[in-house]
Amino acid sequence: PSLLQDFCVADKVSQVRVNGLPCKAANEVVAEDFFFSGLHMAGNTANKQGSAVTAVNVAQISGLNTMGISLVRIDYAPNGLNPPHTHPRSTEILTVLEGCLHVGFVTSNPENRHFTKVLAKGDVFVFPKGLVHYQFNNGNTHAVAIAALSSQNPGVITVANAVFGSEPAISDDVITKAFQVEKNTVDWIQAQFFISIVS
Amino acid sequence: PSLLQDFCVADKVSQVRVNGLPCKAANEVVAEDFFFSGLHMAGNTANKQGSAVTAVNVAQISGLNTMGISLVRIDYAPNGLNPPHTHPRSTEILTVLEGCLHVGFVTSNPENRHFTKVLAKGDVFVFPKGLVHYQFNNGNTHAVAIAALSSQNPGVITVANAVFGSEPAISDDVITKAFQVEKNTVDWIQAQFFISIVS
Amino acid sequence: PSLLQDFCVADKVSQVRVNGLPCKAANEVVAEDFFFSGLHMAGNTANKQGSAVTAVNVAQISGLNTMGISLVRIDYAPNGLNPPHTHPRSTEILTVLEGCLHVGFVTSNPENRHFTKVLAKGDVFVFPKGLVHYQFNNGNTHAVAIAALSSQNPGVITVANAVFGSEPAISDDVITKAFQVEKNTVDWIQAQFFISIVS
Amino acid sequence: PSLLQDFCVADKVSQVRVNGLPCKAANEVVAEDFFFSGLHMAGNTANKQGSAVTAVNVAQISGLNTMGISLVRIDYAPNGLNPPHTHPRSTEILTVLEGCLHVGFVTSNPENRHFTKVLAKGDVFVFPKGLVHYQFNNGNTHAVAIAALSSQNPGVITVANAVFGSEPAISDDVITKAFQVEKNTVDWIQAQFFISIVS
Amino acid sequence: PSLLQDFCVADKVSQVRVNGLPCKAANEVVAEDFFFSGLHMAGNTANKQGSAVTAVNVAQISGLNTMGISLVRIDYAPNGLNPPHTHPRSTEILTVLEGCLHVGFVTSNPENRHFTKVLAKGDVFVFPKGLVHYQFNNGNTHAVAIAALSSQNPGVITVANAVFGSEPAISDDVITKAFQVEKNTVDWIQAQFFISIVS
Amino acid sequence: PSLLQDFCVADKVSQVRVNGLPCKAANEVVAEDFFFSGLHMAGNTANKQGSAVTAVNVAQISGLNTMGISLVRIDYAPNGLNPPHTHPRSTEILTVLEGCLHVGFVTSNPENRHFTKVLAKGDVFVFPKGLVHYQFNNGNTHAVAIAALSSQNPGVITVANAVFGSEPAISDDVITKAFQVEKNTVDWIQAQFFISIVS
Repeated sequence: PSLLQDFCVADKVSQVRVNGLPCKAANEVVAEDFFFSGLHMAGNTANKQGSAVTAVNVAQISGLNTMGISLVRIDYAPNGLNPPHTHPRSTEILTVLEGCLHVGFVTSNPENRHFTKVLAKGDVFVFPKGLVHYQFNNGNTHAVAIAALSSQNPGVITVANAVFGSEPAISDDVITKAFQVEKNTVDWIQAQFFISIVS
Repeated sequence: PSLLQDFCVADKVSQVRVNGLPCKAANEVVAEDFFFSGLHMAGNTANKQGSAVTAVNVAQISGLNTMGISLVRIDYAPNGLNPPHTHPRSTEILTVLEGCLHVGFVTSNPENRHFTKVLAKGDVFVFPKGLVHYQFNNGNTHAVAIAALSSQNPGVITVANAVFGSEPAISDDVITKAFQVEKNTVDWIQAQFFISIVS
Repeated sequence: PSLLQDFCVADKVSQVRVNGLPCKAANEVVAEDFFFSGLHMAGNTANKQGSAVTAVNVAQISGLNTMGISLVRIDYAPNGLNPPHTHPRSTEILTVLEGCLHVGFVTSNPENRHFTKVLAKGDVFVFPKGLVHYQFNNGNTHAVAIAALSSQNPGVITVANAVFGSEPAISDDVITKAFQVEKNTVDWIQAQFFISIVS
Repeated sequence: PSLLQDFCVADKVSQVRVNGLPCKAANEVVAEDFFFSGLHMAGNTANKQGSAVTAVNVAQISGLNTMGISLVRIDYAPNGLNPPHTHPRSTEILTVLEGCLHVGFVTSNPENRHFTKVLAKGDVFVFPKGLVHYQFNNGNTHAVAIAALSSQNPGVITVANAVFGSEPAISDDVITKAFQVEKNTVDWIQAQFFISIVS
Repeated sequence: PSLLQDFCVADKVSQVRVNGLPCKAANEVVAEDFFFSGLHMAGNTANKQGSAVTAVNVAQISGLNTMGISLVRIDYAPNGLNPPHTHPRSTEILTVLEGCLHVGFVTSNPENRHFTKVLAKGDVFVFPKGLVHYQFNNGNTHAVAIAALSSQNPGVITVANAVFGSEPAISDDVITKAFQVEKNTVDWIQAQFFISIVS
Repeated sequence: PSLLQDFCVADKVSQVRVNGLPCKAANEVVAEDFFFSGLHMAGNTANKQGSAVTAVNVAQISGLNTMGISLVRIDYAPNGLNPPHTHPRSTEILTVLEGCLHVGFVTSNPENRHFTKVLAKGDVFVFPKGLVHYQFNNGNTHAVAIAALSSQNPGVITVANAVFGSEPAISDDVITKAFQVEKNTVDWIQAQFFISIVS
């Protein structure tokens, strides 16, 4: 949204809920409201996907409210994947700090064109707003990227989680038809996502 | 985008390409530029999903250019599915004209909450912008819906097509890891989407 | 406005007033917040204009807040008219479900071009944002249309009501000069709108 | 729309037509592109309404393209009226330089509240976007106002012209029903607007 | 931001803080909420710059909230200057009511092109959003201008005040390097701005 | 601006000029259109300010057109300064990759509050849209930062360059009055900026 004052630092204790967040009183705003520390620290990639996202959006920096931008750091273990997902509210621009990434995005119907690129250190790539995209570290070393997103709260829809891991689950009838698979395949996939949550 | 004149009817023969479409000369605009015929006719649901979408967006009505809205008619055979998909550029509001639909959408991470509702004739439901959603006709009769979308060109990303049917395909390494499945399961699913395209 | 979260379902009991509406707590949102029932039912056209508008906007569906779209059903008795009006905050796209409608819109000064079309079942027409438009059922049967509007709260300014039926009335000096009519003609027209309100 | 460069001065000789206007080459832009002369000169109020609007929008200043703002000067003879109209694309803020004005605007349905104020020299009033409004000089002296509008091309829909003076005319059936008047009254009013155009 | 109702008049007593301002209850809105008086009165130019800005924005007219526009009157003594400044949230369109002004704006890096014009009574000039601009009365008589801005709260960043008069001061190391001047020059300039505040 | 298709990759050879850039044909778009290489390489800080900005915006990546985001890498020699400047079209979020930075921004009139922070590796800071801000490396080692900006073409207005280095120069009368300094001080500062350009 358009800014209507110099800033509207999120008031985290307010009971008021609006599109975005209500503001702190301007005279109570301090430099710390625009500050976050720790983006140099690697995330924990000891999980099934072998990747970790450290977000710096309006939840971490109150001063990002109404500002239309945020950052993330992404760590990738060897063979680590930031699995196919969309950001419903933002475009992403990513740069590789360390290692090597195989990245891609897919356009909408009917073409579903798949654009891919192998990125080395210092390379930059753009994932257009709302499109399915992923990054995969098919190298032998850890990889690290910094990405910027065009929203204070871009949202993440991991395709597999939305489809196979929703709460409650999408019915087998829908999934089997959508993916043209057998019911027990669906059950097996759903179980993976259920396990990953409880363990 | 904000309108900067009464209308900017798409000039379909222009060689100029911009965000949206360039305009016809205002004095050449006619009533037919705001018109489409045939939304009362059922789409052909004789396909694997058992559903058909008839779109009325800027590709069908030039006068929708810069107007931020479009329509679709959706037909569903018994057991027909409009499979899980997102509209990267629009919210959808749907009303059932005939039959009965089981509908749902899933929120973004980490909750992935699944909101569902069974809709009968005359019911209306909203699918928020960018979220994964679907409609399923689990009744014995055909169903018909009209839906409006908040974009002249909302885009459709069918999850299964984007992930399993992209051109070229997303690598098995990415898919198997993302969905936690075996390589031959992935190959089988991809084959369904490949077959559906060539047949 | 741009969405800054998955949804911002209107909190109808909040005392806070903002552009649009404040949101319910996300964890209290339920599927019913995106739902409305009854659009298959005909509105009551037993009035002077012979038409009835059934609105489904943010006042009926809380989940439409911040979503930029809404629906209406319009019923027309034979000879029924949805009289000349503007939507100050939206474009409209209308499709005829039953019957036949003579529709039109008029561009801004100085051309005041009048675009018209006769619509049959299944036809679609667009009324650009902010322009004066109308639908007239000059057939012998009832007509029904569904229209979508590019705002959660598009607003309706019926020209005759705004000019002749405002509260308090616009002075005779203004009206007689604006319409180049005699004072008693103005008084007579104003009386019609006064009567229509009290009766 | 959001600016994507310092300016996009309208290229008046380009054959390209877009929402707004295409730009001149930046290195050909000159100070005159941001300049207009003559707003101190009174418009000719020798017409039926007794008022004259001198517009300074993107048609007069190419540099206003993409800038979202424009000006007008309005002159009012004694008893002069700027008749009820809407700006489909802008709010208006007006200040009186000379004389006295009776002004008003009317809200949308169902309230159609009429807000009025008598303005003297130095007074300022706001007419919200898209609402019907007017200014009337019921004093004995000329009046002059400067108004700013929140669009490079706000558009003007004079209610009487749109309804009674469109080309071609709106059918008598529609007008008589909309205004609840006899056919010969409509014909008489329409004749006034036809005369005013040809004379 | 887009309007989501006819108006959202700022509620000046509300404790709620949002982007812009919360609204009064619609049924408590009165014509005075859209009104300001006194723009015909000269500002006091007895200050170092020899100019005075009288603002009419959302702080003065509650009804401007969400409307995207505001006005200012600027008075200039002979040799008076409205010093180089930016409006971070608006374009400005200015017209000269009395006297003569030398005006200019400078584009962004790397060109830093300086567009200038001498304006006489009735002349209009545009200062694009966010660019550094100024007006200087190098004539012998007072000058008066009215300017409109494309924001309800455009903001003013006077370059000299932001750089030399901030609270607390920007460090000498930064200023001397930025302006390539000696420390005592910086101290002297800062002293001017400190004096102007305390006296 | 809102996206109206999946992407609108800038067509760098088109003769058409619009707000932003015209698009390539969608079927000619390739992965390289979303790609840039070299952000790991240090910029040359051997200049008067001791800093270097490597931009990755729509000029470097055509695929950023209409996407509302861009990146920069900034290198700072010891004692290096990214001097006070504004981005007229974007907020900035910066993270330190190496070294230590003293950063600050100043709010608009009348407060001109100066928010400052010392940033170490991994720290993140936000500079709100349109406000004057700077980064200063007061350490003994090189520093490196990556910053994201909420525009495809954010623009940079270096305060000193705009005021003292414009082409043609702002008149001494304006500068001396604005900064309350002697004419020979102005001449001396202007000479620095003239020298820095020619050398």
